[in-house]
Amino acid sequence: MSISRRNFFKRTIITTSAVASIPAIVSSCISTNEKTKESLFSKDDVILFQGDSITDAGREKQSELPNNIRSFGAGYAFIAASELLKEMADKNLTIYNRGISGNKVYQLAERWQKDCLDLKPDILSILIGVNDYWHMRNGNYDGTPDIYENDYRELLTRTKKEFPDVKLVICEPFILPETRAVDESWIEPFSLYQKIAAKLSEEFKTLWVPFQKVFTEAAKVAPAVVWTEDGVHPSLAGCHLMAEAWLKSVGM
Amino acid sequence: MSISRRNFFKRTIITTSAVASIPAIVSSCISTNEKTKESLFSKDDVILFQGDSITDAGREKQSELPNNIRSFGAGYAFIAASELLKEMADKNLTIYNRGISGNKVYQLAERWQKDCLDLKPDILSILIGVNDYWHMRNGNYDGTPDIYENDYRELLTRTKKEFPDVKLVICEPFILPETRAVDESWIEPFSLYQKIAAKLSEEFKTLWVPFQKVFTEAAKVAPAVVWTEDGVHPSLAGCHLMAEAWLKSVGM
Repeated sequence: MSISRRNFFKRTIITTSAVASIPAIVSSCISTNEKTKESLFSKDDVILFQGDSITDAGREKQSELPNNIRSFGAGYAFIAASELLKEMADKNLTIYNRGISGNKVYQLAERWQKDCLDLKPDILSILIGVNDYWHMRNGNYDGTPDIYENDYRELLTRTKKEFPDVKLVICEPFILPETRAVDESWIEPFSLYQKIAAKLSEEFKTLWVPFQKVFTEAAKVAPAVVWTEDGVHPSLAGCHLMAEAWLKSVGM
Repeated sequence: MSISRRNFFKRTIITTSAVASIPAIVSSCISTNEKTKESLFSKDDVILFQGDSITDAGREKQSELPNNIRSFGAGYAFIAASELLKEMADKNLTIYNRGISGNKVYQLAERWQKDCLDLKPDILSILIGVNDYWHMRNGNYDGTPDIYENDYRELLTRTKKEFPDVKLVICEPFILPETRAVDESWIEPFSLYQKIAAKLSEEFKTLWVPFQKVFTEAAKVAPAVVWTEDGVHPSLAGCHLMAEAWLKSVGM
């Protein structure tokens, strides 16, 4: 093969990689066990999305009804829940969103009885951690990675104690630099929080949604601000990317 | 083949058909020309969703920004737009939602300059008609099918006159009986409005989203109220079903 021809092939491969479609990116980040869906979801299951503003997504908090549009806000949980309810329309699923803006792990713990245990979830998805770092960084919170780890482990232990069979989904907290609020200096200190979330996912044998990997890959296809304007809160495109990653991680 | 074996095969076929998955239903209703997506969407396109409460979906109306979560509400347009922005993240699309709750065709016309023509759409999706019938039925409007047809044709003519190259997507208005607000007596009179929408779609050579067919098929998989509690406004599952049908109709 001549050098020029080798270069052509090399170029072709690079080009193909550069224009990889978003579904290919999600697939490249998440390998789905096709049996996950069947083993995860059963008739009459209660599913709960928990977290901070990213999960909250402006939901109406007066009635907090399950399977209700107003009570779901407009974020990844709305897209993921509506897909679950559509795909398994015959399964009589009950899905709640109880994310609250600004929450750190200890604030989940404060409302865990009312906003988790009382709902008796069969499947519990948690996305928490960015505020545990961010609020410390901007001087509004005294937290450390150790506090995040201890608080998070205690929350999971408490949950498993009350519901030994609950199926847990831990979502990786994520950031994207080159955005309004986030720069490169976030990456190393925030990675400590991400590693803790991953460690707890292993420890409690949960499903894992690798959001950081997905957003990092997506930022190669379009600038970071296309996915999240401030580096923390997803855009419309970012919400759909998250929902797709979440759904793929649970076998959909 | 013995009769019992023939009966077994017959039963198997019926069972398979009864548990057909929702994606199969959407596929069975909508045949996609794979070239549609390529020919429809170009770099820097402006896309506009227009309609009534189903499109509005509780969107925030102070800033009315494109590609903005708050300005999109939580409905099919949110799910469809977020998928377009994700899938074509490199295309710099600008997507608006300008649906307004309660609107009939003449009310679209009243705000068409500001809420359509001024936005210079390359692709315009319209879902309108259920209030043209419903408000007449409950005595709050003097409309008729003829008025719906004439108003709608005038609106489309006006749009094509200003933007001859605009790509139109007409969505079929839909209802589901055996729900809180809709019973069987709606079907025949409302079908006149649906036929008019279909006729105008042919007349103006638009893309067509057959929502009625999709919802009718979905109601065979799960009760109508799973898809729309009042027979008009979609549930979470109904929103995702609509988005999927819309996206498939535009080649996604």
